[in-house]
Amino acid sequence: MFGAGDVRVLEVPDPVVEAPTDAIIRVVRGCICGSDLHPFHSKPVSEHGQHMGHEAIGVVEDVGASVATLTRGDFVVVPFGVGDGTCVFCREGLPTSCLHGTWLNGGQGEALRLQWADGTAVKVPGVTEDAEESLLASLLTLSDVYLTGWHAAVRGGAGPGKTVTVIGDGAVGLGAVLSAHEMGAERIILMGRHTARTDLGREFGATDVVAERAEEGIARVLELTGGEGSHVVLEAVGHAPAYEQAYGIVRPGGVISRVGVPQFDSPPAGFGRLFGKNATVTGGPAPVRTYLEAAIQRVLSGAINPGRVFDMTVGIDDVPSGYVAMDERRALKVMVKPR
Amino acid sequence: MFGAGDVRVLEVPDPVVEAPTDAIIRVVRGCICGSDLHPFHSKPVSEHGQHMGHEAIGVVEDVGASVATLTRGDFVVVPFGVGDGTCVFCREGLPTSCLHGTWLNGGQGEALRLQWADGTAVKVPGVTEDAEESLLASLLTLSDVYLTGWHAAVRGGAGPGKTVTVIGDGAVGLGAVLSAHEMGAERIILMGRHTARTDLGREFGATDVVAERAEEGIARVLELTGGEGSHVVLEAVGHAPAYEQAYGIVRPGGVISRVGVPQFDSPPAGFGRLFGKNATVTGGPAPVRTYLEAAIQRVLSGAINPGRVFDMTVGIDDVPSGYVAMDERRALKVMVKPR
Repeated sequence: MFGAGDVRVLEVPDPVVEAPTDAIIRVVRGCICGSDLHPFHSKPVSEHGQHMGHEAIGVVEDVGASVATLTRGDFVVVPFGVGDGTCVFCREGLPTSCLHGTWLNGGQGEALRLQWADGTAVKVPGVTEDAEESLLASLLTLSDVYLTGWHAAVRGGAGPGKTVTVIGDGAVGLGAVLSAHEMGAERIILMGRHTARTDLGREFGATDVVAERAEEGIARVLELTGGEGSHVVLEAVGHAPAYEQAYGIVRPGGVISRVGVPQFDSPPAGFGRLFGKNATVTGGPAPVRTYLEAAIQRVLSGAINPGRVFDMTVGIDDVPSGYVAMDERRALKVMVKPR
Repeated sequence: MFGAGDVRVLEVPDPVVEAPTDAIIRVVRGCICGSDLHPFHSKPVSEHGQHMGHEAIGVVEDVGASVATLTRGDFVVVPFGVGDGTCVFCREGLPTSCLHGTWLNGGQGEALRLQWADGTAVKVPGVTEDAEESLLASLLTLSDVYLTGWHAAVRGGAGPGKTVTVIGDGAVGLGAVLSAHEMGAERIILMGRHTARTDLGREFGATDVVAERAEEGIARVLELTGGEGSHVVLEAVGHAPAYEQAYGIVRPGGVISRVGVPQFDSPPAGFGRLFGKNATVTGGPAPVRTYLEAAIQRVLSGAINPGRVFDMTVGIDDVPSGYVAMDERRALKVMVKPR
């Protein structure tokens, strides 16, 4: 990406192992993330551009000398947050705060160099790149979107007896609905207005859909909750109006768990919005690796099928048009099939 | 209070029972709160003025027909948050969000009308207004400041294995130090620069004192925590710079629990401050009543002596000078002895 709206497909040198902790991953499937649309809207022009794509499943092509858990030919899920696996924060389950961490990139290309391979990627036993398309799609969501929704639900404390409202009907929001449902939330209200998406949300476990936004949306959720508000609000958008909505619908003593990358710096948070209600705001980039092994098992067992969020697939030459399709909301989530 | 800096002592009609759920409390001790300094700085001029004082211990003088738990002559602690005790939020332990709730006022006078007496005040068994001054002082802190500090520590998750940093060496901050100590926090860092206050903080359990503020203060706390930051930050000030400090020192995955009434509306909360670290912000007005019975027992048993925060006592005619003393930081916490 060379600037807002300027995504190009170029030949670049093949990545190679540079550090003993590296692995080279041939990308089997990548995808375009809702958060990629933020720079697609606003990135300043850059002479050298930036490799894009922080979600991938693929095959290990090469490993550095110290990589112990992966070997050539392994089929892996690669989380968007790259961590060394050994620092104090990785050991505590927060690899997104790894002392030597970075963010994955190159996932929209044919191959990528993965730093801290042991601490980051996880092998999927018994699966090859020839697996069923639906299985590949679900595994691909484990690199970010589904587990980002899961993280929102974990941090929000979704569970039995709780009303959970999800703001945003994108892939992360739908992952949050599915996660809240898996955790036993009694009532799941999905706020979104794209019927195809909210219909999938209902299949994932949403009990109510609210298409209204802003004050009207807040009023509708309050009405649905007997005026009390929602115990848990999962904010999967990242724009200020979604955050405002979250304040309006959270129940006194409740939790707003946000995983939409914030596109603003100073949300209203004074007495009337947050403090007076004793509401909690939590969330952040999902520590995908922490949740990954268990999620792979849930996908392999067929318990969940989060890959249903993909509704468009492009070859590598059509990645730029994939951005446009997502930006124009013609596509919910675009998969990239490099070859 | 008739406006910023304008506190007057006036004769007003005695309060009377107006609703069957009311009680009339003769104030034995009241006090001036750090949060009273906010209107003392900024309240617009008002023709009719506002009764002040939301903290009191006293004797029940009269009760409405439906009051069941209190009777004339009872000695009570009166929380600053008035709740009916029966609504959904009161039953959940959040009386500050009571559907019929209000805030106490008149605590700096000779007597006050307490609405929702059963849901709010708690009788202190075996104590009269002739009790030792130190006992009265400690009971008085249970109406707000000590239990506001306790609430911060509860919401922050202070406990064994945790480093807790308290921002603010006022009465609430010192209550938060004492509470974190009672909860078994391993290390308690108190940020404050008034030696008399931080010395009391050390007696209450602070293991470290940091006098520096802003970037220097942040650097010092990071140094004390091996660069990792503080698991729990208890923010007991309410001004934006304290909040900024909290962002800077909170450990990735940690919690900022704020009980200083926010004097700003839009704190920085973007990727670099809060989201990126997966930090949580929580807190709000303390549901004092929920904690009150147990705290009365801890005071009566001598386990805690939070009343040590009082360092000045005024008669009712000197309440205005008490405001000035607190505002000029000549007094930490001013007690009012109406007669």
